[in-house]
Amino acid sequence: MEKLLVAKIGGNIVDNEEALASFLKDFAAIDQPKILIHGGGKIATRVAEKLGVKTEMINGRRITSKENLDVVVQLYAGLINKNIVAQLQATQTCNAIGFTGADANLITAVKRPVKDIDYGFVGDVISVNEDRIHQFLANGLTPVFCAITHDENGQLFNTNADTIASKIAVAMSSYYEVSLYYCFELKGVLTNINDKDSVIESIDSEKYISLKAAGIIADGMLPKMENCFDALHKNVAEVHIANADFVNNQKTKHTTLTL
Amino acid sequence: MEKLLVAKIGGNIVDNEEALASFLKDFAAIDQPKILIHGGGKIATRVAEKLGVKTEMINGRRITSKENLDVVVQLYAGLINKNIVAQLQATQTCNAIGFTGADANLITAVKRPVKDIDYGFVGDVISVNEDRIHQFLANGLTPVFCAITHDENGQLFNTNADTIASKIAVAMSSYYEVSLYYCFELKGVLTNINDKDSVIESIDSEKYISLKAAGIIADGMLPKMENCFDALHKNVAEVHIANADFVNNQKTKHTTLTL
Repeated sequence: MEKLLVAKIGGNIVDNEEALASFLKDFAAIDQPKILIHGGGKIATRVAEKLGVKTEMINGRRITSKENLDVVVQLYAGLINKNIVAQLQATQTCNAIGFTGADANLITAVKRPVKDIDYGFVGDVISVNEDRIHQFLANGLTPVFCAITHDENGQLFNTNADTIASKIAVAMSSYYEVSLYYCFELKGVLTNINDKDSVIESIDSEKYISLKAAGIIADGMLPKMENCFDALHKNVAEVHIANADFVNNQKTKHTTLTL
Repeated sequence: MEKLLVAKIGGNIVDNEEALASFLKDFAAIDQPKILIHGGGKIATRVAEKLGVKTEMINGRRITSKENLDVVVQLYAGLINKNIVAQLQATQTCNAIGFTGADANLITAVKRPVKDIDYGFVGDVISVNEDRIHQFLANGLTPVFCAITHDENGQLFNTNADTIASKIAVAMSSYYEVSLYYCFELKGVLTNINDKDSVIESIDSEKYISLKAAGIIADGMLPKMENCFDALHKNVAEVHIANADFVNNQKTKHTTLTL
């Protein structure tokens, strides 16, 4: 099977012009089929504030109102996605093409069901069109996804970028041997959040349970880990959590997940 | 040669939720290869004002500053383009895919040369990648372009949507017999701007010169007409200026251009 690299970059990379440029240069230089998924960064919050769009929180969870959705669609699918595509095109080695899930019906989702909280226009992924994505890859294109999906009825959704990366990696595993990289500003999963070098280099399912029990893996890292293990359970060959410089320098200390 | 429809909708259609929905329904129902180009509408001016981004004018011409460019990229490539794509997907008969010129390197442009005025980040189209657009069409996709281009060096540009429509129609004429429709809120070119039924049904190059001399065609209609005649001179089979309802109801009175 041919190898495919699926890389996700977090909001802190997107927000940092220098880190983003450096990552994109490394990413473009990778000479194999590849897909990029990018988070949103803090710009959506800043622009929402300037536009007078309030960010509603319920029990500490962010609610995506119609006005919030418009802001994230603008920024994620517009400003951020298209500037990333233009920067990748500038390398002359990466024929990037920017997508939401609505484009070519690539990722469908359903509005997150209301239990205790109505999250608003947040979508949970239903399906990824691996045949169409494979067609783009086979035609020499590099898909660049923002974390916006649709419901096939005209509604766009804000969706978690980590989850999209995992779902795309899983779907593409029917065509490729997929390596999934979650790239961010740290070096990996840390035993001590105040020591940036305290990287846990390998985590399997068993170790994950004990790290969780010890409170070493907590908060926002938990759903990321769930996405990692879900990918491994569904035939993704490799999953790594690493610094953004890792994509092109695989000797850097980082975290590798295994079952 | 297979037929291809290239339709451009103006900002007044994009701004009018009902008119836009009606147009998209008609457009999706057209059972032949097709391409849509959309203008921006007034929302960019509204959002720029709210964000405190000033619109600079020199000699009555709008200048696209870095801040203005960010706003139009957000709104045209993000909010407007992706909502149009999602609405077309909702018809289940139109597999729409949204593009700027940067995506798959489809439309390259150069910053408008500075003579009397520096227009800022405004791009003049250099090339359209007809082979790649043909590939998407042959694979059953319907390209939806906003009026953003790039220079292959990482810079995005604001570009005139009428010109993009004309350039795309010309480029695609090497593969298809192309019909180009400029769709807007009026019925066509009018002899009397106050009489919405005073449609001039046919304009050839000679009549255009006399209408221009008489001041009947003036202002913003002049560059649109230049784009129309440029397309006809470069092998586009048909060019029409018509109401947005025309695409699916070709009996409506409208303006047809001929050489």
